[in-house]
Amino acid sequence: MAEFKTDIQIAQEAEEEGYPIAKVADELGLARESLVPYGYDKAKVDVSDLAQRPRKAKLVLVTAISPTPAGEGKTTTSVGLADALNRIGKKCVLCLREPSLGPVFGVKGGAAGGGHAQVIPMEDINLHFTGDFHAIGAANNLLAAMVDNHVKQGNELNIDPRRITWHRVVDMNDRQLRNVVDGLGGVANGTVREDHYDITVASEVMAVFCLATSLADLKCRLGRMVVGYTYDRMPVTAHDLHAEGAMTALLKDALAPNLVQTLEHNPALVHGGPFANIAHGCNSVMATDAALRLGDYVVTEAGFGADLGAEKFCDITCRMAGLAPDACVVVATVRALKHHGGVARADLGTENLEALERGLPNLLQHVDTMRSVYGLPVVVAVNAFPTDTPAELALVEDKCRALGVNVALSEVWAKGSEGGGALAREVVRLCDEPSDFRYAYELGSLKEELEFVARRVYRADGVSYTSAAERQIAQLEEQGFTNLPVCIAKTQYSFTDDQTKLGAPTGFAITVRSVRVSAGAGFVVALTGDIMTMPGLPRHPAAESIDVDEDGRITGLF
Amino acid sequence: MAEFKTDIQIAQEAEEEGYPIAKVADELGLARESLVPYGYDKAKVDVSDLAQRPRKAKLVLVTAISPTPAGEGKTTTSVGLADALNRIGKKCVLCLREPSLGPVFGVKGGAAGGGHAQVIPMEDINLHFTGDFHAIGAANNLLAAMVDNHVKQGNELNIDPRRITWHRVVDMNDRQLRNVVDGLGGVANGTVREDHYDITVASEVMAVFCLATSLADLKCRLGRMVVGYTYDRMPVTAHDLHAEGAMTALLKDALAPNLVQTLEHNPALVHGGPFANIAHGCNSVMATDAALRLGDYVVTEAGFGADLGAEKFCDITCRMAGLAPDACVVVATVRALKHHGGVARADLGTENLEALERGLPNLLQHVDTMRSVYGLPVVVAVNAFPTDTPAELALVEDKCRALGVNVALSEVWAKGSEGGGALAREVVRLCDEPSDFRYAYELGSLKEELEFVARRVYRADGVSYTSAAERQIAQLEEQGFTNLPVCIAKTQYSFTDDQTKLGAPTGFAITVRSVRVSAGAGFVVALTGDIMTMPGLPRHPAAESIDVDEDGRITGLF
Repeated sequence: MAEFKTDIQIAQEAEEEGYPIAKVADELGLARESLVPYGYDKAKVDVSDLAQRPRKAKLVLVTAISPTPAGEGKTTTSVGLADALNRIGKKCVLCLREPSLGPVFGVKGGAAGGGHAQVIPMEDINLHFTGDFHAIGAANNLLAAMVDNHVKQGNELNIDPRRITWHRVVDMNDRQLRNVVDGLGGVANGTVREDHYDITVASEVMAVFCLATSLADLKCRLGRMVVGYTYDRMPVTAHDLHAEGAMTALLKDALAPNLVQTLEHNPALVHGGPFANIAHGCNSVMATDAALRLGDYVVTEAGFGADLGAEKFCDITCRMAGLAPDACVVVATVRALKHHGGVARADLGTENLEALERGLPNLLQHVDTMRSVYGLPVVVAVNAFPTDTPAELALVEDKCRALGVNVALSEVWAKGSEGGGALAREVVRLCDEPSDFRYAYELGSLKEELEFVARRVYRADGVSYTSAAERQIAQLEEQGFTNLPVCIAKTQYSFTDDQTKLGAPTGFAITVRSVRVSAGAGFVVALTGDIMTMPGLPRHPAAESIDVDEDGRITGLF
Repeated sequence: MAEFKTDIQIAQEAEEEGYPIAKVADELGLARESLVPYGYDKAKVDVSDLAQRPRKAKLVLVTAISPTPAGEGKTTTSVGLADALNRIGKKCVLCLREPSLGPVFGVKGGAAGGGHAQVIPMEDINLHFTGDFHAIGAANNLLAAMVDNHVKQGNELNIDPRRITWHRVVDMNDRQLRNVVDGLGGVANGTVREDHYDITVASEVMAVFCLATSLADLKCRLGRMVVGYTYDRMPVTAHDLHAEGAMTALLKDALAPNLVQTLEHNPALVHGGPFANIAHGCNSVMATDAALRLGDYVVTEAGFGADLGAEKFCDITCRMAGLAPDACVVVATVRALKHHGGVARADLGTENLEALERGLPNLLQHVDTMRSVYGLPVVVAVNAFPTDTPAELALVEDKCRALGVNVALSEVWAKGSEGGGALAREVVRLCDEPSDFRYAYELGSLKEELEFVARRVYRADGVSYTSAAERQIAQLEEQGFTNLPVCIAKTQYSFTDDQTKLGAPTGFAITVRSVRVSAGAGFVVALTGDIMTMPGLPRHPAAESIDVDEDGRITGLF
């Protein structure tokens, strides 16, 4: 470790010498009129003039092994890679997801990279940023209020209050709201019913926002969202409630991508941030599209491991938005691989080649999937830790090379772009190779799609269905929700649907427990277990340590 | 009426020729470094350099008769007065409250003035603006999550879940959330308890935000807020939960006042917006203080009628912030006065001198209060409507003159500043008169304070207390909450606590039904009836008509 500063200390020192965002925009070739400033270090980009430019950049997808408590550093690697590409003279635009406010106050802390590979202004990005998530929450909650108001005011649409599926959201870890009964207090105060809250990032509005290609497309998608069912079990949409216009008004400004900079003053579009289980887990299409028209290289990051985030990026986002990655980076750490090999967290700092070898199949399966299923050139980025030993690093390298994949040691956390040279050069080399990008499945029946992902990506023996799921699939087909891609909500910790099965298990089946449509997003969500859409705070929330000092500087944000 | 354009049409046309906000700031004498832009038409003002300048401006308080469904046009008059003062060469800074998102989608529409007396950008101000209310909501809901999390994680503070008084908020009219049971689903999902939601503007965080004089004062006030009581009935504060640091981090940027412009390019600080019943109902002290250091005249508006908003501005805000108004404008319309005289809404356009005479005492009592109780020079602004007849206007003028108060006809809705000349000149004249500003009561016992306001401002015969209120008052005194001003939550429609008693009733008493402390804001709230802190949507919410057209322009916002 180069120094013992916290992320926020490094970020705050850098912010003092950060470029005005207008300069970052100038260097990116953005017309000054396209910039809507939010302070001097953040801006929204009006993309209306970009449509004339071609999508000419190479698209690099950064994904990772199955996450572990040890941390993999996927965002850090993405930031460092973008800086390293710029350092070797490639005009690279970074695309990241916006962090959710909830985890900032919970346990996770900030999510804007780490060490010397961060995007700034770090505090703003981790708190309100340009208000996108607040806008998404407001649009979500406006729709919720309109649904219940409709029921209360005569219920012309014949909505069954027991079958309202639209949840309210808050951008906070608040377990108290997971299960509620609302509408209490008599007729004047609504209709008593069971209800649930999600964290804002789990809202379908977030997924819609991130898949929309224009304001018109956004409005159209919002209108299609299903909010519940009638007593006759027919879907009721936001359009039926005349809600999509007002929701679009709330989201209009937010839809423009946010421009910030890395610690090394390179451009980053940080925009949108859906879950990678019940949604598709990538930054907005608006941002990626803009970046492809502005840069020569675009680095974008998908959520969780490659089985969740990269699968959805390829099979959902790329398919809908007409994108095709040119290369894929799979991030791993020696520590996390040892965790997959069964080592307890406290012992991850000790060399353990046996455990590493047991854990390596997790990496290798992800790598093989990205290569053989999706047809992408792949490089493994090993996010370096001081405790990594030469023998451990050599083992990772050997195993990957056996698959025909190079490994690049990434030291961007400690050194910034200087630590990412090898990775950047390999990425450039891969982008020059012919790519043969393809989806894991063609659109068709939901069960076929599920079967393809389970067998090809998870390496499961097959898929089984609860009777509820069977019934729901039949209903969706009856209601005309066919030929949509599937969005599988599965634990991120395992290729299986059992989060305790680490590494690369074999001989298992995936059980689909329920199925629901996200008609606005345009996919069917298949849930393979209980997916937590409202986190809770830990015994000592990070919020307890966050403060503002006398100079107005935020402390305690990690 | 000069033309039949809607407010948003007038505003949108003007926005095209609006000044860059930097130009407005330049003309105001603000250093460019003090400006934090939000787009090109809005900015936050870093006030740290202003402390060196004296509070030299004359402070003009705009208040009104008791509100009626006919509308009085208090904000329109405030905007027009500020423009008219600037027109006659007086450097005037306007201070307004920010509109709440909830009513925009309900029935009320926007709240940024009307006709040719508006602040712009009207759509932004009515929607997310610079995100202040989202920040206040997030801070409120972080505290709520920390309270329930504390209970769930061992409850060291011994909080009685039945006595948690801190509500969650959402900036939406959502009656379904008035009464809820949350924490359902077993131990892992919280503690089952009855709970309630308020609209964001009703949060104590909003009151604290608007009374804070600095970031340090804000944090201190947040820490003092009471969130509930222990099993021993002792208050538990946000500080006990270590929440005020993180809450301050969320509110840090929001605390800087927002600079926008009127249609005539004059500066307006639009900042904060608490209720005027359970809170004090004025824009932020940060904004008023900055305006007093920047202008020669400051126009600020208080909520509801003078018995609520102006009373609280004088007795709470001025006392805490060391402010003293120099003159007071009481806004009335002939239509609204006829409504106070018993005329139905449909007939307000017809001349009716008898009804006007019956309604006039409402105006006269407000005027007399501002003069004789608060010692302020007063002018009555009659917000002109095309249906007003010369005889009606003469009657208003005569009755006011009998009290020694001039009446100025205000035609700012139709004509902008040109229609506000008489009002502006009278305001200037009054500001040059010696003012003898004083509070309605000195701080002391709660009952004495209540008695003073009820007798002197409402002209009630006295105050009675429910047994619950008696008990609560005793408890608060026991807990050391003494020598705080009282914040009376009463219907805005009547001087009495019965909203059907219009005009200027006599021979009534006020009944205090319950009492609670807003320890962060620094006042005790006395409730004289059920105060709605969570509105509902009407049968056809305004949201149904709001849309975004192909050019990205918002329509249907009024």
